[in-house]
Amino acid sequence: MHVEGLAIKDIAKHIPTPFYCYSSAAIAANYTRYSDAFARLDSLICYAVKANSNQAILATLAKLGAGADTVSEGEIRRALQAGIAPEKIVFAGVGKSEQEIRYALEQGILQFNVESEPELERISKLAQQSNTRARISIRVNPDVEAKTHAKITTGKAENKFGINIDLAPALYEKAAQLPGIDVTGVDVHIGSQLIDLEPFSAAFAKVAQLVRDLKAKGINICVIDIGGGLGINYGEHSEEPNITAYAHHAETHLAELGCKIIIEPGRSMVGNAGILVSKVEYVKEGQVRTFLILDAAMNDLVRPSMYDAYHHIVTTEQKSHTATYDIVGPVCETGDTFAKNREIGLCQEGDLVAIMGAGAYGAVMASHYNSRLNAPEVLVHDKEYSIIRERIDFDSLLSMDSIPAWL
Amino acid sequence: MHVEGLAIKDIAKHIPTPFYCYSSAAIAANYTRYSDAFARLDSLICYAVKANSNQAILATLAKLGAGADTVSEGEIRRALQAGIAPEKIVFAGVGKSEQEIRYALEQGILQFNVESEPELERISKLAQQSNTRARISIRVNPDVEAKTHAKITTGKAENKFGINIDLAPALYEKAAQLPGIDVTGVDVHIGSQLIDLEPFSAAFAKVAQLVRDLKAKGINICVIDIGGGLGINYGEHSEEPNITAYAHHAETHLAELGCKIIIEPGRSMVGNAGILVSKVEYVKEGQVRTFLILDAAMNDLVRPSMYDAYHHIVTTEQKSHTATYDIVGPVCETGDTFAKNREIGLCQEGDLVAIMGAGAYGAVMASHYNSRLNAPEVLVHDKEYSIIRERIDFDSLLSMDSIPAWL
Repeated sequence: MHVEGLAIKDIAKHIPTPFYCYSSAAIAANYTRYSDAFARLDSLICYAVKANSNQAILATLAKLGAGADTVSEGEIRRALQAGIAPEKIVFAGVGKSEQEIRYALEQGILQFNVESEPELERISKLAQQSNTRARISIRVNPDVEAKTHAKITTGKAENKFGINIDLAPALYEKAAQLPGIDVTGVDVHIGSQLIDLEPFSAAFAKVAQLVRDLKAKGINICVIDIGGGLGINYGEHSEEPNITAYAHHAETHLAELGCKIIIEPGRSMVGNAGILVSKVEYVKEGQVRTFLILDAAMNDLVRPSMYDAYHHIVTTEQKSHTATYDIVGPVCETGDTFAKNREIGLCQEGDLVAIMGAGAYGAVMASHYNSRLNAPEVLVHDKEYSIIRERIDFDSLLSMDSIPAWL
Repeated sequence: MHVEGLAIKDIAKHIPTPFYCYSSAAIAANYTRYSDAFARLDSLICYAVKANSNQAILATLAKLGAGADTVSEGEIRRALQAGIAPEKIVFAGVGKSEQEIRYALEQGILQFNVESEPELERISKLAQQSNTRARISIRVNPDVEAKTHAKITTGKAENKFGINIDLAPALYEKAAQLPGIDVTGVDVHIGSQLIDLEPFSAAFAKVAQLVRDLKAKGINICVIDIGGGLGINYGEHSEEPNITAYAHHAETHLAELGCKIIIEPGRSMVGNAGILVSKVEYVKEGQVRTFLILDAAMNDLVRPSMYDAYHHIVTTEQKSHTATYDIVGPVCETGDTFAKNREIGLCQEGDLVAIMGAGAYGAVMASHYNSRLNAPEVLVHDKEYSIIRERIDFDSLLSMDSIPAWL
C-alpha cells in the first residue's frame, strides 16, 4: 500500500506507529473537483478548518487558492499563519466571545456568520467601539432533514445553530439598522457527512427565496454562503456525493441572484486524503471472537467511539487469506473499538493496518487520554514526506502539570 | 458557591473561564472512606490514574498513601514522578507494548495485570531477557452484567478485556510453568460507574472460588485485585454506592482466603471532587427552547457528548428564579450539548455555572478540537489555590505543527 510514491511500510520504518499519513495530491485533487465544479459561478472555496487544522494542511490549501471557514480565534490564527488572506476568512460558530470578535475585526476578515440576535448586537457594539463595521451573514435554518447522524445534523429548527428561516427577515431588518453592521450575505449549513444531495437542493431553494424577499425589502444580499456538509465514502456504502451535481443544484437555485457563492467543504476536502497507520500489537483469541488489538486507540481517532462511525480498515500488505475480527485499541474502555466482526486480511502481531478515511476529524479530535502520546502526522508529497506534527515526549507531557507548594 | 474556603467567583476573577477546579479535601475524604472501609483487610488502594492523571492530583493521593493502577508507560511515569513507589504500582491494559513492559520491569512495579495469553508470553520473554521475573495477576471475566453504559461495561464474556473465568485455570497452569513469570494474583474488573453492588458481590464470589481452585492445584494466589468501578452520584439519581457495604462484600467473599486485596477506585476518588467552571456566553431564545451557550465545550468535557452522560449543572450564585434551558457549548456540532431541557437558575450573559462531578474523565479526555485552548486546572487547598495545569497559548498550540520545505 502506497501514499503517492511512498510505501507505508517504508515510512513506518522511520516513524513508530500509530501515525496519521496524508496525501498532498489527494487534497489537491479534492480542491480541484470543487473549483472545477463551481467554475461557472463567482465562488470562493473556504476550507472548513475544523476538519483538519494542521498548519501544513492549511498551507497546502492556501497555495491552491482556498479561503478558510473558521470557528474560533485559534482557527483564524491558524489560517492567517498558513498564508490565507483575511479577506478569504469567514468566522462562524455559536459562541463567539468578545475577545474573538475583536480579534477578527482587527484582522479585517471577510465576514462573520451570525448565529443569534445577541451575537449580532455584540458584534455591532464591538465594531462601533473599534470604529469599523462588521460584514455579516446570518445563518438561517431551513428546517430540512439532513438524514445524517443526530450529533452532526445542524439544519433542523430545534438546533442550537442559526435562526429559523421564517424569522430571518425580521432579524435582517434589525441588522440593517445596527450601526456596526454591514449586511452582506446569507449563510446556511444543514449538517455533516451528507450523501444524499436532495436536502441541499431543498435548502438552496429556501435560501434563494429568502434572498429574493430580502432584496425586495431593500436589503442587498451579495454573498450566499452555502456551507459544507458533503460526505465521503467511508467504505460502508459504495456511493459518494457527486460534487458536479452538487454545484449544479447551487447553480439551478442561486445563479440568477448574482451573488458570490461561498462553499465550505471540510470532510470532503481532506477526509479521504488521510489514513491512520497502526500496528497489530496482539491477536487475542476469545471464545466467541478474535480481537485484533492495535496500538492506535480512541484517543487517536475518536469517531468510531463517539459517532459509531464506520471506517474501512485494511492490511497495508496484500494477504492471501482473510479473517474476521473485532478490531480494538488498547484503551481501557469497551468503547475503544474501531470495528466489530470485520473481515480483513489474516493478521499476526506486528502487521500494519491502515484505518481509512481518517484525514478529517481525526487528529483534530485527538487527546492524551490514558496518558498516551499523540500519533504524529505525516504529509506525503510525491516521493517525499515530512512530519508535520511530532509525537510529544513523556517529559513534555508531564511538564504541562505543576505540583503546588503545599504538596 | 465555594470550593473549600474559596468562592468560585473570586477564583474566576484571576483565571478566565472555562477552568477545572478540584478540592484537595474532597479527594482526601474519598481516600479516607476507602481506607476506613477496607481497614480490616490487608489492602492497598491503587488509584486508577486514568480518571484524572494530573501530577498534583497524583501527588495529593501519594501523600495519603495511595498506590496507582496504571494502563500505559505514561501513567507509570506519572505515578513515579508524583512520588508513588514502584511497589505500589499495578500495570493493566490490553495492549501493553514491548517497550512498556520493559519499562515496567526496569522500574520493579508491583504486578502486571495480564489480559491475554500472548501478553503473558510476551511478558515472560521480556522478563527472561532482563534476567528477572514479572509478578502477574490474570484478569478474569466473571461474566456478570454490570448494568451500566455499554461503552464502559467490561466484565462480560465478549469484551476485549481479560480471560473468561472458566478458561483461567488452564492459563494459570501455563503461567506457572513460564520462566519469566511469578504468578501472584487474580484480577477482576467488571465495569465503570456501577451503582448497584450486587454485580460486585457476584463477581467476588466467582473469584473466591477460582482462588480456592487454584490453591488446590498448588498455584498459590496471594493477591486479589478487585478492580474499581464504583459509581458516583452525578445528580440524576439520589443514591450513591456505599463504600462500607462494598468493602463488606469483599470481606464476606475474600477475607478467609488470606490474600492481600487491591482496590482500584478512580471515578469514586476524584469524580465528585471536581467541577468545570464556565461562563454563559449567550442566552439564545429559540422558538421552541432557550439555549444557554457556555464558553466550555465538548472538547473540555466530552462525557455528555460521548456517553450521553448526565452532569448536574448549577449557577455559582444563588438565583431567585429558575428557567429551563438546553445548555450547550460553542463547538460546531449538535453533540456539543451538556444538558437538554434542564431547569437551573435564571441566567444572563456573563453568569458563572458549575458543571458538577467533573473531577474524573474530564480534563484527561480533553482535546484542542476547534483549535480551542485547554481549560486550565486549579487545585484548592483550604484557602489557597494553585494552577496545576496552565492554559496553553496560541503560539504554543500552533508551534506543534511544522510546514514542509516544499510548501
